[in-house]
Amino acid sequence: MSRSLNLAVIPGDGIGQEVVAEGLKVLSAVLPQDVKLETEEYDFGARRYHATGETLTDADVEALKRHDAILLGAIGDPSVPSGVLERGFLLKLRFLFDHHVNLRPSKLLPGVATPLAGQPEIDFIVVREGTEGPYTGNGGTIRKGTPHEVATEVSVNTAFGVERVVRDAFARAQARPRKKLTLVHKNNVLAFAGHLWTNVFNQVAQEFPDVTTDYIHVDAATIYLVTDPARFDVIVTDNLFGDIITDLAAAVSGGIGVAASGNINPSGEFPSMFEPVHGSAPDIAGQGKADPTATVLSVALLLRHLGYEAEAVRIEDAVSADLEERGSLPARSTSEIGDALSVRVAG
Amino acid sequence: MSRSLNLAVIPGDGIGQEVVAEGLKVLSAVLPQDVKLETEEYDFGARRYHATGETLTDADVEALKRHDAILLGAIGDPSVPSGVLERGFLLKLRFLFDHHVNLRPSKLLPGVATPLAGQPEIDFIVVREGTEGPYTGNGGTIRKGTPHEVATEVSVNTAFGVERVVRDAFARAQARPRKKLTLVHKNNVLAFAGHLWTNVFNQVAQEFPDVTTDYIHVDAATIYLVTDPARFDVIVTDNLFGDIITDLAAAVSGGIGVAASGNINPSGEFPSMFEPVHGSAPDIAGQGKADPTATVLSVALLLRHLGYEAEAVRIEDAVSADLEERGSLPARSTSEIGDALSVRVAG
Ligand SMILES: CC(C)[C@H](C(=O)O)[C@@H](O)C(=O)O
Ligand SMILES: CC(C)[C@H](C(=O)O)[C@@H](O)C(=O)O
Repeated sequence: MSRSLNLAVIPGDGIGQEVVAEGLKVLSAVLPQDVKLETEEYDFGARRYHATGETLTDADVEALKRHDAILLGAIGDPSVPSGVLERGFLLKLRFLFDHHVNLRPSKLLPGVATPLAGQPEIDFIVVREGTEGPYTGNGGTIRKGTPHEVATEVSVNTAFGVERVVRDAFARAQARPRKKLTLVHKNNVLAFAGHLWTNVFNQVAQEFPDVTTDYIHVDAATIYLVTDPARFDVIVTDNLFGDIITDLAAAVSGGIGVAASGNINPSGEFPSMFEPVHGSAPDIAGQGKADPTATVLSVALLLRHLGYEAEAVRIEDAVSADLEERGSLPARSTSEIGDALSVRVAG
Repeated sequence: MSRSLNLAVIPGDGIGQEVVAEGLKVLSAVLPQDVKLETEEYDFGARRYHATGETLTDADVEALKRHDAILLGAIGDPSVPSGVLERGFLLKLRFLFDHHVNLRPSKLLPGVATPLAGQPEIDFIVVREGTEGPYTGNGGTIRKGTPHEVATEVSVNTAFGVERVVRDAFARAQARPRKKLTLVHKNNVLAFAGHLWTNVFNQVAQEFPDVTTDYIHVDAATIYLVTDPARFDVIVTDNLFGDIITDLAAAVSGGIGVAASGNINPSGEFPSMFEPVHGSAPDIAGQGKADPTATVLSVALLLRHLGYEAEAVRIEDAVSADLEERGSLPARSTSEIGDALSVRVAG
């Protein structure tokens, strides 16, 4: 029986092109012979926006729906006003495709530099809610531009939305050796949303008696991330808190050059999207300087999501080995790193 | 002419008692002879709440108003449900006394341990808005406790509120050698509030042409705080973002044991309140183990706010000297540190 993997590929802006090429190279190298890889490239991002004014049309959405998954490089360019591509493409897709599990692993691999002293042990994952909270675009402005302007942002949280992501996080915690799940919120101040999150968390916990739980405020979480990151195994948190702490988590565990992420629709109703946490880095674009590792690790998350566990592990092992060797190698270009990883995963 | 300083003292819970005693000790030692120090102690916190159910009554508020400033140790105890004392006392006072400038300096002093590798230079202040944003308590819950619960949190931002804190931050930046001010927000996602903040920031900037400005998203700010904290001079930000990044800032610049803060009403219409960033730490309370340094540095902020600049500097110099010596000294108790600092400031 032959299988197929039908991928939507969105190189996007800046270094997106370069890193996605390497991600696909490694993907081809790791896939079993009998899996037919089909890819279709989409031109979302700054160029398309400048040429047509479009960020993501209805027809685009229909086309994307037909794929098994989406691989994204980076979207964003200083020539486009802040927020246009973020809200018009990235967030729009997360909402339309109900990517409610925003998965961001943080692992400090041997040989990788961290800004923290003493090379601490870091190996945790953050399950960030992806479709609610302050990201819904609710709110508004009155008396705009006047001394009496009032601007509101409404964080919307539903039992439905919180429960499904909390349950997903408990299942992920249960599947890990330490079986520990930490809820991060700010329930002493954001009492309405905080109560909902805490209450749902405690209820779902009863279904997972073997998972150890705890709670910490988001401000305290940033302290632990730099003083005692080993305390974390799995974290579940709200959309905005997740945005903030995963950038910090990426920074302490080797930098955004190696941070992967998945925007996951666990039911498979819509394709999930995988992308490096880094942005388009226009300052180094087109120079072969970008590290494709975060994209390659995002390919591993993509494969795991689609059931190719062995192949995901092969990629992760190849990346570990490659990073461990780096200190002793001269600097390599984007495609040299991709080549090296391809050789390793094929090996 | 004799002057007076009439202080409200709120030791509060846990280690609050111990550290406030040392703060007052150092204050007495540093004050000029002709200043008559009057203090009145208030019993806010967990004990009062358990005894009477009160957190802060109208009569309390009237009494507090009569002081020049307030010195607070810490409020909070695990025996009180999360949020009760925070919202019923701390936040209530910030709102009632219009403490819209929440001032949090971060300086990594010589001899102080940081979790960051390479002992980077850290010397910046965060001006956190204190009376708006997601802290207003706006929002609500419907269908509470059911699978159809919806909980909202409304961030309220006004041109009036943003402008005054932004202007305060510009003035503080202008008074520092580097004259640099960074706005931290998330204007690519929180577009309503983000536009207001960015717009007001750019407008006020025109009145301070000698201040260099930049903008970064809150998620990226957490990265810089661990990879390049020297990039910051003065930061101005929203209430919630300020809460999060100042805990991180405290962590990287020596820990919450040395982090001071001021809840300031710049007009002087109401007394300002000064407090260490750390909490009540019930696990080490009553053992003489708490470091009073953050409280002593909060006393310095208090003195500076009331016009005692020379005395504030004397305290800060004493703390620097004390911290620099610590590595070579055996561990000292809370009161031994307070004694040492008192001797130094009396000089
Ligand atoms: C680009 C931006 C909209 C996005 C977010 O805030 O979610 C990014 O920061 C991320 O974390 O994926
Ligand atoms: C205790 C809590 C209400 C408070 C806040 O969130 O502002 C604290 O974290 C702080 O930073 O002063």
